[in-house]
Amino acid sequence: MALGEFDLIARYFTREPRRAAVGVGDDCALLAPSPGMQLATSVDMLVEGRHFLPTAPPERIGHKALAVNLSDLAACGAKPLAFTLALALPRIDEAFLAGFSRGLFALADEHGCELIGGDTTQGPLNICIGVFGEVPPGEALLRGGARPGDDLYVSGTVGDARLALEVFRGSVAVGADAFEQVRRAMEVPQPRVALGLALRGVATSAIDVSDGLLGDLSHVLRRSRVGATVQVDAVPRSAVLAGQAPAMQRVCTLAGGDDYELLFTAPPERASAVADAARRSGLAVARIGRIEADSGLRLIDAAGQAVDNDFGSFDHFRL
Amino acid sequence: MALGEFDLIARYFTREPRRAAVGVGDDCALLAPSPGMQLATSVDMLVEGRHFLPTAPPERIGHKALAVNLSDLAACGAKPLAFTLALALPRIDEAFLAGFSRGLFALADEHGCELIGGDTTQGPLNICIGVFGEVPPGEALLRGGARPGDDLYVSGTVGDARLALEVFRGSVAVGADAFEQVRRAMEVPQPRVALGLALRGVATSAIDVSDGLLGDLSHVLRRSRVGATVQVDAVPRSAVLAGQAPAMQRVCTLAGGDDYELLFTAPPERASAVADAARRSGLAVARIGRIEADSGLRLIDAAGQAVDNDFGSFDHFRL
Repeated sequence: MALGEFDLIARYFTREPRRAAVGVGDDCALLAPSPGMQLATSVDMLVEGRHFLPTAPPERIGHKALAVNLSDLAACGAKPLAFTLALALPRIDEAFLAGFSRGLFALADEHGCELIGGDTTQGPLNICIGVFGEVPPGEALLRGGARPGDDLYVSGTVGDARLALEVFRGSVAVGADAFEQVRRAMEVPQPRVALGLALRGVATSAIDVSDGLLGDLSHVLRRSRVGATVQVDAVPRSAVLAGQAPAMQRVCTLAGGDDYELLFTAPPERASAVADAARRSGLAVARIGRIEADSGLRLIDAAGQAVDNDFGSFDHFRL
Repeated sequence: MALGEFDLIARYFTREPRRAAVGVGDDCALLAPSPGMQLATSVDMLVEGRHFLPTAPPERIGHKALAVNLSDLAACGAKPLAFTLALALPRIDEAFLAGFSRGLFALADEHGCELIGGDTTQGPLNICIGVFGEVPPGEALLRGGARPGDDLYVSGTVGDARLALEVFRGSVAVGADAFEQVRRAMEVPQPRVALGLALRGVATSAIDVSDGLLGDLSHVLRRSRVGATVQVDAVPRSAVLAGQAPAMQRVCTLAGGDDYELLFTAPPERASAVADAARRSGLAVARIGRIEADSGLRLIDAAGQAVDNDFGSFDHFRL
């Protein structure tokens, strides 16, 4: 017998409520943040061909769909609580659903983040996840808090996801091991939740790098009404990416997108607190520039020479 | 110059935050329910051809996308606070966006419900709205609270939306005025938020009628572990629908879908409180049956004769 909408929800997406007072299966889910906490919420919609390739394994699609949302909570310094899932599928495909839900729940469980509701419908493949976290009032990391003199940092390495896309596009060739590494960066990004929490009270602003480092930085600069100088050769990259042509390295690190590392600012006198936050969350962070009162974004190389900024930001309508 | 993703958000979807501490344009929106309140949340995904016809005016699509979500809050007895919008569009179509956002915000403003975040991407048209409301702990109307002996009620009239669909399909013909009336029922449903709030402490269970009255009732019966008898001729319908063939009337009222009226239960001794709630919210409510300890759903006509239940529930994978 063919599965219907309700069987599908029951089989793949119903678990006993834990933290939520009412979970999947009522008109609304009921959720109470801890007393006195603000609720942080974000939503991301993933479409095949834009946010994942048709070749991506379902398990990785499930992982990534939640990961990009958890990354928004991380960028706010919020602790994950729960999420909702709305899913349009061309048809009920049990192999897809089994893999998708496995990848989704593996990451959800890792972060103690509970599925509390959702919707399913027939339609072109579309995954829309809304995520909920909590943060003490006034402690959320926002985009508008960068101040002149702040150091600019980024976590981990950036650019591998874009390099993977270039390999899929056929514009670059790498060995099999290197390909699996960069493909994992693209398909299985790790949201930097622990770092976001550790940066509460330390970072003055934060954003996750989803549309390209310079593009995301420009949001911070605009909201904070400041400018910045970025030392482009200081942007951390993997050994695989460091083996590519210099122009490819710059595109991937500065305008790559899909990195899900945290880009954040902190005053120089908090440098040791930043290092401590990085150590506690098991991540490297690199200082890549400085916030300045002069508006605009200036790029320099390791020798201090100006670098042209002709790196576009990723735009979901202009790929 | 072509609009990009960020211009689009700025032009059509950015307003100053009101209640939310942080709204559109940061990694997360921050929202604090009133002290001591539970947060109610729901999500619905709308796809062209399933939830609205390609012929629907954009303003009505904007209205309906939010209305179906507010209807979930209504069914919980929750007061609307805020919503998020994720939108996939085949291309940036300013005529669509202008109408869509106008219809969306008109309904949002009517209910004091603030857009606090979202996402836009290129892809087959898909509208995913997540809605947030608040309700005092323990007062939410749930599906699992119906008790044997409770009266079963429905608000307004049901069946017009399905009749409109049958007209669009060409299986029924009606006059121009009648068509506009039933088309409005389908395209501009009114979420019964005031009634839901008035039923707090009165109704023992509630659900909104979105997939067909009998199908939605079956969710209540299953969750409440009870049965019911429904007097099918007592289900309220418009004069237009009452002018159709009896078989069409039954399909439209019992298995129509897209009604967004509230189906709820209350003990007979609360009948005057139900009438008072209806009066305060400016709606008619009709008693259409009774909850019973015996599981299963029994249908009778006005003469008390058994009616076969061969009315399927709307399934978004089995249209």
